[in-house]
Amino acid sequence: MTSQALVVGVDLGGTKISTALVDVNGQIIAHDYRETQADKGQAVVIDRMLDAVRQVMEQADIPKAQVRAVGIGAPGPLDIHAGVVIAPPNLPGWRDVPLKELIEERVGIKTFLENDANAAALAEHRFGAGQGCDHVIYVTVSTGVGGGLILDGKLYHGAEGAAGEVGHITILPNGPLCGCGNRGCLEALASGTAIAKRAREVVSRGAPTVIAELADGDPERITAKLVAEAAEQGDFEARKILSEAMNYLGIGIASLVNLFNPQVIVIGGGLSNLGERLLEPVRRGVARHAFAAPARTVQVVLAELGDKSGVLGAAAAALTQIEREISFKIS
Amino acid sequence: MTSQALVVGVDLGGTKISTALVDVNGQIIAHDYRETQADKGQAVVIDRMLDAVRQVMEQADIPKAQVRAVGIGAPGPLDIHAGVVIAPPNLPGWRDVPLKELIEERVGIKTFLENDANAAALAEHRFGAGQGCDHVIYVTVSTGVGGGLILDGKLYHGAEGAAGEVGHITILPNGPLCGCGNRGCLEALASGTAIAKRAREVVSRGAPTVIAELADGDPERITAKLVAEAAEQGDFEARKILSEAMNYLGIGIASLVNLFNPQVIVIGGGLSNLGERLLEPVRRGVARHAFAAPARTVQVVLAELGDKSGVLGAAAAALTQIEREISFKIS
Repeated sequence: MTSQALVVGVDLGGTKISTALVDVNGQIIAHDYRETQADKGQAVVIDRMLDAVRQVMEQADIPKAQVRAVGIGAPGPLDIHAGVVIAPPNLPGWRDVPLKELIEERVGIKTFLENDANAAALAEHRFGAGQGCDHVIYVTVSTGVGGGLILDGKLYHGAEGAAGEVGHITILPNGPLCGCGNRGCLEALASGTAIAKRAREVVSRGAPTVIAELADGDPERITAKLVAEAAEQGDFEARKILSEAMNYLGIGIASLVNLFNPQVIVIGGGLSNLGERLLEPVRRGVARHAFAAPARTVQVVLAELGDKSGVLGAAAAALTQIEREISFKIS
Repeated sequence: MTSQALVVGVDLGGTKISTALVDVNGQIIAHDYRETQADKGQAVVIDRMLDAVRQVMEQADIPKAQVRAVGIGAPGPLDIHAGVVIAPPNLPGWRDVPLKELIEERVGIKTFLENDANAAALAEHRFGAGQGCDHVIYVTVSTGVGGGLILDGKLYHGAEGAAGEVGHITILPNGPLCGCGNRGCLEALASGTAIAKRAREVVSRGAPTVIAELADGDPERITAKLVAEAAEQGDFEARKILSEAMNYLGIGIASLVNLFNPQVIVIGGGLSNLGERLLEPVRRGVARHAFAAPARTVQVVLAELGDKSGVLGAAAAALTQIEREISFKIS
């Protein structure tokens, strides 16, 4: 594959669609960013995706024939083999949508579908903090906790594409209820949603904290970001909430270190903006809870691609697939 | 590779060495079983291994030239790339022993080293309960809890051969101390050692149970096997101890189901003799704690190879390596 090989990545989210024309080095040649308008239904969203794909090719003045593939990163659950979006919570009304086929037929370019967390893992592996490593565990911490596993240099899907749910390992049996129905999942303890929920509890029991003030007294306005702001200001309760959540994240990541013996754990998602306030407790957790040898090996680092990880991940999924097809032809 | 291809598997344990001449179908053609005599030191143990290897070839009247490789399953920690046994707790005095090289030189047959839990995983994948599946998680529950990961049809080693430590994922933060120094590991909650320890506590606080009686009043004689016997007799405390341990095992295995989306979880080791008393709570744990889709996919089954898994696993490790070398030559 020459460095001229181009792909289009489409990151389909519940609120925005991010689309880019990308080369094999992860350089973004043209970019389109628009609202999803998920409330207008599936047909409108798909039209908007198609329009965005055409838009980035036009912007760069690149004819369709020069684009090798389109990659779509979409929220799960998916059937990645069939290219079907099953029923994502943030795309209301979508049910068993054959998105790969729909896009492929209407754009006329080979199209591949990947779940968004796996796509971000591919992006960090190929272009970001996991470059050059064959064993990379990507963990995204935002409203939820997700992940993607790069094992022996390849994204690991498991039997049916559902592997990598690092947010749903049990950390605290009988702990807080998780959105998945289980109790004490990593996501129920360390996600942005979990942090905000815990802060609301702390505020509602009248603990002395600036959180309520920062939220103008409205519990609905309490977010993880706001808790982080309070912590920055030295607020004791906010620091305690964050520190507990990050300790749980450290325990979960230590388990991943013992299971996978990875070279690197890459942490992305909105909460990675916490920087050292996230890295320090997680690194401490790994040192304390994992075996000495794999704990020595592993680097725990922040993701490098920021809000570009979705669209670059979709592009990386397309690049991975076309490389796979080339290697099948050769062998 | 023809079905005539033969390998020798050596399962090196702290108390016994099990050695077999094995064909590609996992048929044992000759078998040798002897004490390790670990207390006599490393040189004696290695001589005993060499003698056992020669013994099985003689027994079957097979010349050395017909044996393609020797596989050794040894207790960790190992450096599998270098073929070095680092410092196994049950082989006192062993430190950085280049076992692969020592055996290879003195037997004159290509030799490979694999850790014992990984070897058992290979055996169940190739000859036992995981046959025909590309995604197999093997969990051994005996004095400790160990495991091996068959991912995309291959044993997963991680960056440095330390992957697969399923016994050391944290199940209960601040739970009982584990041999690894961490607290609340799966091994500290669901291993035979953990069950015996818990039973000793229950007996020492004078709870009404036949366990003390079965142990002739000697706490040192309390084992997981004895707790299982008491449970069979209907003993309430024994049943409670086992049920708690197996519930934790179920929680741990549910996390593995969410992480790996495997086709099959194979449970081996001494405690797999519990049969339904192990399977039922583990299956319930998976149904309760894992996502619906991967929980529906996965079969939780008992290992099929019993006490042959070690020696067949050592043989399987050798077969895997020679196949890999053949495929390198071809490609």
